[in-house]
Amino acid sequence: MSVRTSLPNAAATVSMEQVPQVSASLPLAGGKGTPLQHPLGPLTPLEISESASLITALWPTNTSIQFKTITLYEPSKTDLTPFLIAERSGQPRPVVERRSFVVYYIRNTEKLHEAIVSLSHGKVQSNLRLGQYVHGSADGEEIVEVERVALADEGVKAEIAKLQLPEGTVVISDPWPYGSDGVNEGGFSDEKRLFQCFLYVRDPNNSSEADSNHYAMPLNISPVISYETMKVIRIDYLPTGADNTAKPPSSYKVQPPNEYIPEAQNLRTDLKPLNVIQPEGASFQVSKFSELGHTISWQKWNFKIGFNLREGMVLYDVHYAGRPLFYRLSLSDMNIPYADPRHPFHKKAAFDLGDAGAGVMANNLQLGCDCLGSIHYLSAVLNNDKGEPYDMPNVVCIHEQDNGIGWKHTNYRTGRAVVVRNRELVVQSIITVANYEYILAFQFNQAGELMYEVRATGILSTQPIDEGISVPFGTVVHPGVLACHHQHIFSLRVDPMIDGPLNRVVYDEAHAMPRSEFNPHGNGYSVIETPITHSGGYDLDFDANRVFKIQNSAVKNPVNGKPVAYKIHVPPFQKMLSDKESFNFKRAEFADHNIYVTSYRDDELYAGGKYTNQSRGGTGVRAWANRKDNVLDEDIVVWVQFGINHIPRVEDFPVMPCEVLKVSLKPVNFFDKNPSLDVPPSLQSFNKSTLVSVGESAVESTGNVCCEGKSSKL
Amino acid sequence: MSVRTSLPNAAATVSMEQVPQVSASLPLAGGKGTPLQHPLGPLTPLEISESASLITALWPTNTSIQFKTITLYEPSKTDLTPFLIAERSGQPRPVVERRSFVVYYIRNTEKLHEAIVSLSHGKVQSNLRLGQYVHGSADGEEIVEVERVALADEGVKAEIAKLQLPEGTVVISDPWPYGSDGVNEGGFSDEKRLFQCFLYVRDPNNSSEADSNHYAMPLNISPVISYETMKVIRIDYLPTGADNTAKPPSSYKVQPPNEYIPEAQNLRTDLKPLNVIQPEGASFQVSKFSELGHTISWQKWNFKIGFNLREGMVLYDVHYAGRPLFYRLSLSDMNIPYADPRHPFHKKAAFDLGDAGAGVMANNLQLGCDCLGSIHYLSAVLNNDKGEPYDMPNVVCIHEQDNGIGWKHTNYRTGRAVVVRNRELVVQSIITVANYEYILAFQFNQAGELMYEVRATGILSTQPIDEGISVPFGTVVHPGVLACHHQHIFSLRVDPMIDGPLNRVVYDEAHAMPRSEFNPHGNGYSVIETPITHSGGYDLDFDANRVFKIQNSAVKNPVNGKPVAYKIHVPPFQKMLSDKESFNFKRAEFADHNIYVTSYRDDELYAGGKYTNQSRGGTGVRAWANRKDNVLDEDIVVWVQFGINHIPRVEDFPVMPCEVLKVSLKPVNFFDKNPSLDVPPSLQSFNKSTLVSVGESAVESTGNVCCEGKSSKL
Repeated sequence: MSVRTSLPNAAATVSMEQVPQVSASLPLAGGKGTPLQHPLGPLTPLEISESASLITALWPTNTSIQFKTITLYEPSKTDLTPFLIAERSGQPRPVVERRSFVVYYIRNTEKLHEAIVSLSHGKVQSNLRLGQYVHGSADGEEIVEVERVALADEGVKAEIAKLQLPEGTVVISDPWPYGSDGVNEGGFSDEKRLFQCFLYVRDPNNSSEADSNHYAMPLNISPVISYETMKVIRIDYLPTGADNTAKPPSSYKVQPPNEYIPEAQNLRTDLKPLNVIQPEGASFQVSKFSELGHTISWQKWNFKIGFNLREGMVLYDVHYAGRPLFYRLSLSDMNIPYADPRHPFHKKAAFDLGDAGAGVMANNLQLGCDCLGSIHYLSAVLNNDKGEPYDMPNVVCIHEQDNGIGWKHTNYRTGRAVVVRNRELVVQSIITVANYEYILAFQFNQAGELMYEVRATGILSTQPIDEGISVPFGTVVHPGVLACHHQHIFSLRVDPMIDGPLNRVVYDEAHAMPRSEFNPHGNGYSVIETPITHSGGYDLDFDANRVFKIQNSAVKNPVNGKPVAYKIHVPPFQKMLSDKESFNFKRAEFADHNIYVTSYRDDELYAGGKYTNQSRGGTGVRAWANRKDNVLDEDIVVWVQFGINHIPRVEDFPVMPCEVLKVSLKPVNFFDKNPSLDVPPSLQSFNKSTLVSVGESAVESTGNVCCEGKSSKL
Repeated sequence: MSVRTSLPNAAATVSMEQVPQVSASLPLAGGKGTPLQHPLGPLTPLEISESASLITALWPTNTSIQFKTITLYEPSKTDLTPFLIAERSGQPRPVVERRSFVVYYIRNTEKLHEAIVSLSHGKVQSNLRLGQYVHGSADGEEIVEVERVALADEGVKAEIAKLQLPEGTVVISDPWPYGSDGVNEGGFSDEKRLFQCFLYVRDPNNSSEADSNHYAMPLNISPVISYETMKVIRIDYLPTGADNTAKPPSSYKVQPPNEYIPEAQNLRTDLKPLNVIQPEGASFQVSKFSELGHTISWQKWNFKIGFNLREGMVLYDVHYAGRPLFYRLSLSDMNIPYADPRHPFHKKAAFDLGDAGAGVMANNLQLGCDCLGSIHYLSAVLNNDKGEPYDMPNVVCIHEQDNGIGWKHTNYRTGRAVVVRNRELVVQSIITVANYEYILAFQFNQAGELMYEVRATGILSTQPIDEGISVPFGTVVHPGVLACHHQHIFSLRVDPMIDGPLNRVVYDEAHAMPRSEFNPHGNGYSVIETPITHSGGYDLDFDANRVFKIQNSAVKNPVNGKPVAYKIHVPPFQKMLSDKESFNFKRAEFADHNIYVTSYRDDELYAGGKYTNQSRGGTGVRAWANRKDNVLDEDIVVWVQFGINHIPRVEDFPVMPCEVLKVSLKPVNFFDKNPSLDVPPSLQSFNKSTLVSVGESAVESTGNVCCEGKSSKL
């Protein structure tokens, strides 16, 4: 959760009287000084407030409403496409109704609602009470409150007392979403919205250090809190041995701390500065297409970027050299099921986007800390639980990076080498999910390639383990600390428009040719292309060199007549290990295939379904794929899954070196030659590198020659 | 082939009278001013000359000897290990005999010899005539001569005449190693050492451009040249249709050119400079451990680097924080079989290291073109065909790079973020194999990880194809030009010494637990470790999350008692598609498994065997693995295979954007915590980044707000 800053009250308290005026300005008719709203522009502070006011007005005065989401309700593709085409061609743009999507609770009840508000018309279009087993995401205010409730509870205090912690020890409570497996076990009704908390202590010998790593000191007490009553309804003891016995708390043994903060380290002193300097500034341009939406142009790429509570960054209308590539791109979902089958750990299976939100957890990025070079930051405005807008400053950073050589060839006959570097544009957001961090980045290169990179870092979610015990479902990373194995399974949603709206997915495979008169020596092999005709889940097969391509069969490459395409390079991952009867499996509807292909439908954005918290499944991509729709030369959506089965190492503690995952969308017979051919060659006059020369040699007594680098600028 | 520069004659003509004096100084006994030779030091110019002289002296005067390899014959591990241990501990080092390894022909005969020369004793220790079917690699002088012979041949000229090329057209001949499949087909004896040439023309409309890309204009004539006679023994016509019919040459249709040189492009003008500046210099140190061998230290890493004709860069004695990790690391082999089964294309199956050499083909790297920042270059000295030393300047570059965030955590309760960047050391060499380039780099990071990166770039090896034809074994990349599918299969040789000389390889797999009282909800899963007891070939299995680890079972992690290990992260690849009866398959002994594990034996360095040119198989890693040696807690070697099945895209022509492959060796329970914990935090005061601020907004007529970045230094 990021720390929230409320906007000035003026914005939050906009009165209903003002609304019609604001609404009237929205269909892009306004003149100078009017905040024009584009159909894809993230909601403005005024629009957030207006949406909240319209919802509040539906209910009796003094009804306490807890707003979960107040976000842009994106126009249907039918409405938006003509708008975007007109916009690109400079034609008059049709009016598109501007709407917001609102999810809210009547506070401390199970009454969850989903509403659509027309901002253009200043009214609530629909307001739906959602059924049983549908639960809203957590929000920051709620999480802070759950932490407080857990620690203030007398029963919890009594359990903590049994630990006989040193005087002044600070106990920390990490609330977790409550997984769906094991509903109603042990007589507890888990059909209600619940939180489970895991407790830790800060280093008792350094209690004043607020950034002490409490994950090095887990306790075996886990309170469960009801959302409805905001009370502790149960206190679980955690099993700490090799079996599922859960012992009551007893005298806590204080182990050494394991801190990540720099003042606790003996820092290296031999790392010299490395500065990325762009003396003429950055090569990208950023402009606003709406009050909070931005258009980014860089090296023939052009796209819009939005930002919302759930997905964080969203790219729209991605073009290269004027040719359409992608209608919409975003991280759609993520699931992290844990390997420990014992109560209550079996419930650890978080959907970080659906249960909380990549946008709302985005870091406020700091200049020169999170990236190097010439950096531009974008800020966002989201909603808090009271329906007020609040600022999320610097949630996206944009910069260029050098990623080594782009291409090179030396003509050995003449000795002439031509080399170009691989400059990339990085559009990055970093999210903190309590203990864990994800660094999420869209990357673009000069060869027409679009990449999505995830770096997993942060701190492992830990649990206590008795000394001398080892278990096959986790790694002891510190005395008394078990880091359980867990899977991270991501789903990237790719809504393509490769040279137009109608696309297909095909896969290529390479197969050995049988021996024949044509293949007398047995070395021949062929590539066979197979189109996917119906929606479904599909898998990689490295033994067949299977490669999925998104193709426009109506547009042929001028050189070889093959349909233009973008291929998907995605690393393999182990599919979800939870068995098919588990709720883990049923809920994570994307976790069983590398690729899903579905027909496009408005409002199908999240692979795990719209409401993942304590979900039961059946509302995500697996369900949509099961429609068995025709996906051949249709408006389709491609869902690309990837992940890690994280078997923790001691080296991943107390903070984990980044694990990097990368998906790449690469042109295949889309261009008529290497699209980076026109990148200027890499020359010293441009790059200004420095020769580290070997100084005068001095023969040491050991026979070594000492020649520590002496810098000399060329 | 790189352009060679001979050393001053003084070195090349060192007389035999001087040799005893030089030899006497070699066993590290020499005083000041004597070039001390370390057992791992690459051969010095004097040693190369001395070796050649000793070999020449074996033969009657005026025998023309063609030297293929004059290189360091590395000491046996038994001899070298005590030396290295003594060296690290500062103890007196034992004397190790210094020897060279020489491969040579009696010129223009099939008489190939392999000799071992004792430089310490100034004599030839062994001199072996190698048997039938064993052929030496190609060398640069020979390749130039083969090119010349092919084009000077009257028969070839007559065939070229049939093409009726425009006046002044320049024909280019690319010699290729001659594959082994199809021996004796059509009555030709292919048991002799042969070359096949593929012919091209430079753009006839721009004949004076020596760097015109001739691969855009392939001809259908392929002369075959005998090494023994240096004459054309056969002229093949190339099939250019969909079947295996090969038509004689006829009137050549000049198609448009497809150039990669910058003066042929309309270059982008919107890329701004990006400079990597290290104001305090580089963080690494380079010293000499011998005349041509270097020790590199950086961020707790310490290793030696050598360089030889075949492998190029070799790392020795790699330590981290004083702990041994790897005895020796190098790219061991590479095979590139092509998919076209038709004569004579079925013979295209190059072993770029064994048939030519990664060292001898290394580029002379240019400051600020091949990498950015503060760069140190290493040069090498190899041998030419006359047995003379010659300089290979700047064949290795060493520099640091920033690779994004190393780790980050934000304490959401306090808002404090700690972030460190991921600085890497890159030790890089780039090789040009006629049309193709490989960028080869060992990379090291601050988290104890060692990576090997290959970037494949350069120009596709092309062949002619008739207009309107498409084939399933290649891609038309330009009018009349087919780029055949081909596999690149690499073998990285890892000779480990994880905390000591005796290691084992184990693999971890993650498996779902069956449902039980312990796993009532079906979410549990466990990791099972399986040791490899006998040498053999082993494969990845992503469905089981199989991960191979090199382990020292005798050394336990202090935190969790698990054996210390390094795991191997290697991307999957499609195994060789040539069938098991083909010579392609028999020769590429590493191409059928992701991992080979063998017991260590001196002299087993090259996965495809010592002599790959027209080889028959049976002399490489598959054969060694078949010994079924015990490899449990022994001195072992691990061979890591990876590759690409390159299905060319139009975008890969006329020069290919880099395809990047990366192998990673990562600590697993080797350290007692994150080894990069002591990296200083990433701060603006150190990084000196620049804020690209949004300038004053100007509302455009389209409603967009223009805010092209205005740089302001913070």
